[in-house]
Amino acid sequence: MAEAATTRRSRITPEREAELYAAVLDLLREVGYDALTMDAVAARTRSSKATLYRQWGGKAELVVKAMRHQKRGRVADIDTGSLRGDFHALVTHEDDCHMEQNSALMRGLAMAVHGNPDLLKAFRELLVEPELVEFRRVLQRAADRGEIRADNPANDFVLHMMIGAFAARTLIDELPPTQEFLLSYIDAVVLPALGA
Amino acid sequence: MAEAATTRRSRITPEREAELYAAVLDLLREVGYDALTMDAVAARTRSSKATLYRQWGGKAELVVKAMRHQKRGRVADIDTGSLRGDFHALVTHEDDCHMEQNSALMRGLAMAVHGNPDLLKAFRELLVEPELVEFRRVLQRAADRGEIRADNPANDFVLHMMIGAFAARTLIDELPPTQEFLLSYIDAVVLPALGA
Repeated sequence: MAEAATTRRSRITPEREAELYAAVLDLLREVGYDALTMDAVAARTRSSKATLYRQWGGKAELVVKAMRHQKRGRVADIDTGSLRGDFHALVTHEDDCHMEQNSALMRGLAMAVHGNPDLLKAFRELLVEPELVEFRRVLQRAADRGEIRADNPANDFVLHMMIGAFAARTLIDELPPTQEFLLSYIDAVVLPALGA
Repeated sequence: MAEAATTRRSRITPEREAELYAAVLDLLREVGYDALTMDAVAARTRSSKATLYRQWGGKAELVVKAMRHQKRGRVADIDTGSLRGDFHALVTHEDDCHMEQNSALMRGLAMAVHGNPDLLKAFRELLVEPELVEFRRVLQRAADRGEIRADNPANDFVLHMMIGAFAARTLIDELPPTQEFLLSYIDAVVLPALGA
């Protein structure tokens, strides 16, 4: 409720917000989180720093909200009727080019998190927690359909398994996480671990 | 053979080598990979830069060999007679304090890898590949004992699953990867995915 009220009162249109977020992600790709400044964002988007701070509070929240904006609707809208279908939809709703870009951005953020408590907080509250909630919903529906056990301890590790696929793909295989790779990982690892 | 010959010809004793590696890891913890210089290593260890370059070729190889030295014997000596025993031994041979330190160092290296092709090469050749070989040996023995199928596609993802546990533990749970956590992850995720 509070957030909706804030959004209504905001002087920034959704189009302008999308434009700002795109500029922030461009800058993030160019210089990385640590070197990104609010001055650079203000200059690139022709806005005042005062507006940026009033609207987002600070760099961490602005960057994480830009990431979240790009991923919006990711898990929430998926409901295919089977657990395998949901996981596959999750992976195939984004083409390989976007997946590679997003995965590079997320990797950069996940790295910067360790030296920036503000960023860690925003990252967890605005990106990790909502993702966990969505995954729990997907698993709950699968349990309701009788596809998996609701008390399988693996259920708590779904995000760990998926993050492993993304992180290790670059490190072990020196390849970006393509749809093909993620689909085979889901079938070989995630679904068997969940007992589906 | 070539490596053995080089080692024999080396003027550095195993004790001196261990001392050097410890100093490199201390520096790595203090300043991170990118800010670590061969000058600093030479000063800290009272050795000449010429010696360091002759012996290790460069910073990437020196740092990765220092990491490998600390982990030496990690998987290779383990053979408990069961797959679950092997995985548990893997996790419990190191106490939580060392695990947390090593995991922070590995995370730092894994981050630096993306901007440093030399480091990526050394990291893969000297740390990832040997680990993969050892995991394959553990899995092969389990297949020989009839515990798992040798052709289970999950076998190729063991390192992905384990890296996920380490990487996601900090990010999702804001906690270091303790033995207790890793044991429950192995029982809940890794062994079921392998069909053990």
